[in-house]
Amino acid sequence: MSIHDPVSNMLTSIRNGQMANKILIKIPFSKLKVNIAKVLFQEGYLENYSVVDVIKKNIVLYLKYFHGKPVIEKIKRISKPSLRQYHKKKDLPYIMEGLGIIIVTTSRGVMTDKKARNLGLGGEILCSVE
Amino acid sequence: MSIHDPVSNMLTSIRNGQMANKILIKIPFSKLKVNIAKVLFQEGYLENYSVVDVIKKNIVLYLKYFHGKPVIEKIKRISKPSLRQYHKKKDLPYIMEGLGIIIVTTSRGVMTDKKARNLGLGGEILCSVE
Repeated sequence: MSIHDPVSNMLTSIRNGQMANKILIKIPFSKLKVNIAKVLFQEGYLENYSVVDVIKKNIVLYLKYFHGKPVIEKIKRISKPSLRQYHKKKDLPYIMEGLGIIIVTTSRGVMTDKKARNLGLGGEILCSVE
Repeated sequence: MSIHDPVSNMLTSIRNGQMANKILIKIPFSKLKVNIAKVLFQEGYLENYSVVDVIKKNIVLYLKYFHGKPVIEKIKRISKPSLRQYHKKKDLPYIMEGLGIIIVTTSRGVMTDKKARNLGLGGEILCSVE
């Protein structure tokens, strides 16, 4: 993978934006990138540029520790975009003989393997937690 | 590079957060990820979770076209984090015999090669524009 290079990403965004005939594109703020935009504008390569605030939703996860050790020992992706793992109810695996959980997305929402079994549902196995 | 897999990124963030003994981590919002967080919380693997708004600065670039064609024909990264390109004033290259520009970051800010020459400054060559 390439080294983190925000300026290179900026140039790629400009190229892609132009190819798609976009009127405007938005890129993450940095001082250096604003200075580059300023030069591009002054030299006639941009119609304009501005800095705006964008509101995005984040999920905050409050991690749990017990005696200083993380409560989650292992958390592993199972189904992947490149290889989806669907299981019928009777084929849902057990993690650590039932002490761990798997998280399944079913026709009735995201739930544990235990609940899925109780409801008689199979589904896509998102991850396992120990 | 791996296929875009937000759930996998979520699990990696949890793992890294735990390794760094973090109290909380923030991840980009999606409904599926909230549902996974909910199950992790209900099963006792998280202290809590919540959804928050985060304000981030973006730069908006208004792209320029002339008779339907992009004004920027080529925009190319020159100096890279893996191979920085510093040039003295007299070594600043010309793009398209001076019709294109290069953008240089000098001790007196980000500017075109032309301005850098006038001011007698060299610097890091960020990119060229044609």
